[in-house]
Amino acid sequence: MSLNEKQNHGTGIDLSHHLSKVSRARKISPLRGLQKYMSKPGLVSLAGGLPSAEYFPFASVTGELLVPNSFPLNTESESSRSWFWKLFSRAEKERTTSFTVGKYPKHPGDLSLESSLQYSLASGQPQLQEIVHEFVERVFQPGYSKWATLIHTGNTAGFHAVVQTILNPGEGLMVSEWTYPGAMAIAQPYDIRAVPIGMDSEGMSSISLRQTLAEWDESARGMARPHVLYVIPIGQNPAGTTMRVARKREIYDICVEYDVIIVEDDPYFFLQEGKYVPKSERVSEPELDDEAFIASLAPSFLKIDYQGRVIRMDTFSKTVCPGARLGWFTCNPMFAERFERTTEASAAAPCGLTQVYVASLLLNWRYTGYMRWLKGLRIQYKQRRDHLVDCIAEEFHMQRTISMEGITESATMYHASLKPKRSFVPLSEKDLAFSKPLFSFIAPSAGMFVWLTLSLEDHPSFSSLGYKAVEMKLWTEIAEAGVLFAPGAMFSPVEVEDDTPGPGHFRISFSDSTPEGMKKAIGVFGAVLRKFMQAS
Amino acid sequence: MSLNEKQNHGTGIDLSHHLSKVSRARKISPLRGLQKYMSKPGLVSLAGGLPSAEYFPFASVTGELLVPNSFPLNTESESSRSWFWKLFSRAEKERTTSFTVGKYPKHPGDLSLESSLQYSLASGQPQLQEIVHEFVERVFQPGYSKWATLIHTGNTAGFHAVVQTILNPGEGLMVSEWTYPGAMAIAQPYDIRAVPIGMDSEGMSSISLRQTLAEWDESARGMARPHVLYVIPIGQNPAGTTMRVARKREIYDICVEYDVIIVEDDPYFFLQEGKYVPKSERVSEPELDDEAFIASLAPSFLKIDYQGRVIRMDTFSKTVCPGARLGWFTCNPMFAERFERTTEASAAAPCGLTQVYVASLLLNWRYTGYMRWLKGLRIQYKQRRDHLVDCIAEEFHMQRTISMEGITESATMYHASLKPKRSFVPLSEKDLAFSKPLFSFIAPSAGMFVWLTLSLEDHPSFSSLGYKAVEMKLWTEIAEAGVLFAPGAMFSPVEVEDDTPGPGHFRISFSDSTPEGMKKAIGVFGAVLRKFMQAS
Repeated sequence: MSLNEKQNHGTGIDLSHHLSKVSRARKISPLRGLQKYMSKPGLVSLAGGLPSAEYFPFASVTGELLVPNSFPLNTESESSRSWFWKLFSRAEKERTTSFTVGKYPKHPGDLSLESSLQYSLASGQPQLQEIVHEFVERVFQPGYSKWATLIHTGNTAGFHAVVQTILNPGEGLMVSEWTYPGAMAIAQPYDIRAVPIGMDSEGMSSISLRQTLAEWDESARGMARPHVLYVIPIGQNPAGTTMRVARKREIYDICVEYDVIIVEDDPYFFLQEGKYVPKSERVSEPELDDEAFIASLAPSFLKIDYQGRVIRMDTFSKTVCPGARLGWFTCNPMFAERFERTTEASAAAPCGLTQVYVASLLLNWRYTGYMRWLKGLRIQYKQRRDHLVDCIAEEFHMQRTISMEGITESATMYHASLKPKRSFVPLSEKDLAFSKPLFSFIAPSAGMFVWLTLSLEDHPSFSSLGYKAVEMKLWTEIAEAGVLFAPGAMFSPVEVEDDTPGPGHFRISFSDSTPEGMKKAIGVFGAVLRKFMQAS
Repeated sequence: MSLNEKQNHGTGIDLSHHLSKVSRARKISPLRGLQKYMSKPGLVSLAGGLPSAEYFPFASVTGELLVPNSFPLNTESESSRSWFWKLFSRAEKERTTSFTVGKYPKHPGDLSLESSLQYSLASGQPQLQEIVHEFVERVFQPGYSKWATLIHTGNTAGFHAVVQTILNPGEGLMVSEWTYPGAMAIAQPYDIRAVPIGMDSEGMSSISLRQTLAEWDESARGMARPHVLYVIPIGQNPAGTTMRVARKREIYDICVEYDVIIVEDDPYFFLQEGKYVPKSERVSEPELDDEAFIASLAPSFLKIDYQGRVIRMDTFSKTVCPGARLGWFTCNPMFAERFERTTEASAAAPCGLTQVYVASLLLNWRYTGYMRWLKGLRIQYKQRRDHLVDCIAEEFHMQRTISMEGITESATMYHASLKPKRSFVPLSEKDLAFSKPLFSFIAPSAGMFVWLTLSLEDHPSFSSLGYKAVEMKLWTEIAEAGVLFAPGAMFSPVEVEDDTPGPGHFRISFSDSTPEGMKKAIGVFGAVLRKFMQAS
C-alpha cells in the first residue's frame, strides 16, 4: 500500500492527535506537484539537481559473503563446543559466496549503482522495501491488515524520528526504571521527561504501568499524562529481561485504555537464547524448521496490535552488522508517512552502498538462508551467554531461588557469594561473612547482557558513602584491575546521586569478548570483590 | 586537535551564546567515564553492547573504480566534444582500478571491515577524518588556526544538525529570496522563520543584508534580530549565482558587526564552470596545476573567517555520488563538538560501508588523483552548461546586455524572445510582438542550474491570473508536452500565492540529461511558449 495513505489504516481508530507540533508543521511530500508527470513515457526532466551517473566513480561493487550455514545449529556436541572456541583462532577458512552489482542493471528490476548511488527516496530501494515487508509479514505477523514498513538508518535515527513525530517539549515518556541511555540521550534535549515504570523479571511491570497512568496527577507532576511508552521487550538493555506474550497483552490493553502509543525497540529479537540451564543439567535442543523456530520466539507487540498503536523498530545491527546503519519501522501508514517526511529532512535517504550490500545479501541468501543464519546466530549467542554464566558459577558460590514478583511471574534467580579460600586453617568468622550473597541476577534468556544487582551493605564504608557511590567505587577498582563493566547508574533514566537509595548494578556483556576474556574478567571481578569487601 | 576542546578555538571570540536550548541540554559525551580506561593494555571490556565481528556476514568488499583521469581536461578540441557525446553511448570501455577491504587489517592502520562495520564513532573512521582534514587545509585554507572538521552523513543531515544546534523555535533564519527548499523543509517545522534577503547577479546582496539587520524592528517583526545566515555562495540553488571574494568579505564583515553565524552550504564548489562564452567566441582554456586550479576558484567563506563564525558544509554527493550520504563540517571546535553529540543522537554514526568506499577511493587516488578527477568533472559540467545555453541560443532570439545591479556588480544578461517563424508571407504585427523578450537569465558560472526569469506580461490572461498563476499555467503546459522544469515558486522561502507580484521563474538543470534530451526539451519549451503566448 502507499505510504501516503493517511490516517485510515483499516482499524477504524484515528491516532492523528498523537502527532507532535513539529510533525504537524511538516509539509506533505515536496514532490507532489511533479509526481503526476514523472512516469510519462519519453519524459525529459530538467527539473532535478541530480549528478549524472556517468560521473559516479564506482564502476562496480563486489561483496564476499559468508554462507548462511556458517554457524552450527547444535550447542551440545563436543564438536560444536570446540568449534565455538575455534572460531576465535580464525584458523578455519570460511566458506563464502559472492555478488557483484554493476553501474547499469542487466535486467529490469536488478540492483544497479546507477540508481542506488543516486539521490533516492527516503523510503529506501524498492528491492529492499519488498524484502522487508515480506519478512515482517512472515515473522512478526501484525494483528491488522494495513500496516506499513519504512526503511530507516538504524534504530537511533528511527527513535529520533519517533521523538520528533509524536512528542512535544514538556511531555513525559514512559520507560523502564532501567533503560537504554541512548534513547534518553535522544529525547531529553527536547525536554521530553522520563517517567520510569517499575520492572520485574519480565521487564516492564504492567502493574506499575497501570498504577502510573491511573494515579497520574497532572498538577503534582507538572505535565500531562504521558501518551508514549518506550520499551525494549526482549533481552532488555540493560536488565536482560524478556516479556512473554501474556505480559505484552496486559501492557497493550492498558495502552488501549489510556490511549498510549507503544514504541517497541527490539534489536535483540533474534537473540532469544532460551532459558539458562546449569552446565551439568544441559541437554541438546531439537532443530526446528522455520515456522516452528518463529513460533518458539516471544512474539512482537505487532502481533497483538489491532489498533495500529505500535511503532516497531527493527535493525540489521545485531543480525548483519552495526556499520550498515540500516533498519526499518513497522507501524500504521499515518506514522510511516510522517517518518518518511522526517527522514527526508534529516538523513535524506539511507546510504546507497548499505542498501546494495544488505539487499544483495538477502537476495543471495533468500528468506530460508537468512532464517538459517539467524538460527545459527542464536546458538552462538546462547553459547556466549552460557559461557559467561558458567564462568560466574565457577568463580562464585551460587545459590538458586525462584523469584516471585508481581502476581504470576517467576524466574530462577542466582545469588552469588565469594567462595571460601582454600585454606589449611579453619574458616574465620570474617570468611563466613563472605558467604552472604554479594550480588544476584536472573540469567537472561535473550540479548547480550547479564544485569547484576549488588548487595554491598556489608561493605565497611557503605553507610558513609551511600548506595551509588559504593557501586562506583567497586566499578573503579575493577576498571583499575583491567576489566570494564558498565556501571548501573548509566542506565537510570533519571539523575542518580551518590546517595540515591536502591542497590547498585553492573551490566556485563557476553556479546563480543573471547571465551578466555570472559573467564579472565570474572576471575578479576572475584578477586577485586574479595579485597573490596575487606577494605575499610 | 580534539573535538572535545570547547569554546577556545584560538580566536579570542566566544560564540557559545549562539547555542540553542536543545544543544545546551545535550550532555557531554556519554563515554567520558569509560574513556580513561579504554586504551589500557590488556583491558577486557564487558562494558559494550557490540556484536562480535566474527558474525559480520561480509568477508570482504571490493570496489572497481574509474581512474582519476577518466575525463579530459580540455573542452575545445573536436576530440573532446565528440568524447562528451560518446560518453552517453557507453561504447568505450572505462579504465578502472580496484581495491579490496577484508575483515581484518593486514597492517595496523589499514581499513578493515572488523572496525568499519562495527559500532563506531559519530565522528567517522580515523582514516577518513585525516583525509578530510588535510583536504580542507589545502583547498579551503581557513583563516584561523584551531578549526575542526567533522564527518557527517550529507548536507541534509548536516543542516539538520545545524538547526538543532544554533536555532530556537521562533527565531529567524536569513536566506536568499530564492533558495534551496530542502533547507527550509528542515528548519520550518521547528518554527524557524525565513527572513528573505534580496539577491543580485552574485547571489545574496550585502546591501539588502545590511539593511535587514540595521533596520530590524523586533516588535514589528515579532521576533528578535536573526543571528544565523544560510547561504549557497557558489552555483546558488536555484539562481545559479556565484559570489566573488569581495562580496563574501562584505557579508562576513556585516556578520561580524551584527554577530551572525554564517552557514555556508557549498555543494557546487568544484563545479565552477567559469563564464559562459557564446559558441562562436569560445577559446581553449589553459590546463592548471593543482595550486593554480584552487587559486582560480572562488574561495570559501572559511578563508576570510577569523572569528570561527563560519560553519561550512561539504558533501561528496556532487563529486563522488549522492548515495554515499557522506560529507563534513568545517567549523570551530565548539560547534563541531555539539554537532558530534547531535549526530550520536540521530544518525549514530556515518554508514560504515560508505566510509570504506569513499576512504578507499581517496586512498587509492590520493590527493593528486582526486584533484585530477575534480578538474575533469568541472570540464564535464562546463560542457553541459555550454550545451544547454547553446540550445537556448539556437531555439530563441537572444540579446545580450550588461546587467547593472547594486553598486559594483555586473554580469552578462541574456534576453530571449521567440524567433520569427520562417514564412513566405510578411510578418504580422502579432509576430513582431513575439520579438519582445519572454525570459531572461544570467548564464551561470557554477553549479547545475539556469534560472529563467519570465516576462509574461503580454500573455492574454496575465492580468486576470496574476504572476505566479501564469508561471504555473506555462509550467503545466510544458509538463503536458513531456518536459519537466522546476517551477520557480518552489524556491520561495515564504508562501507564494497565485497573485504574489514579481516575475515567474523556472529552474532548468543541465546536470544529468543527455545532450539530445536538453536539445529536445528546449525545442519543446519554444514550441509551447509560442502557442502559450497566442492562447487566450
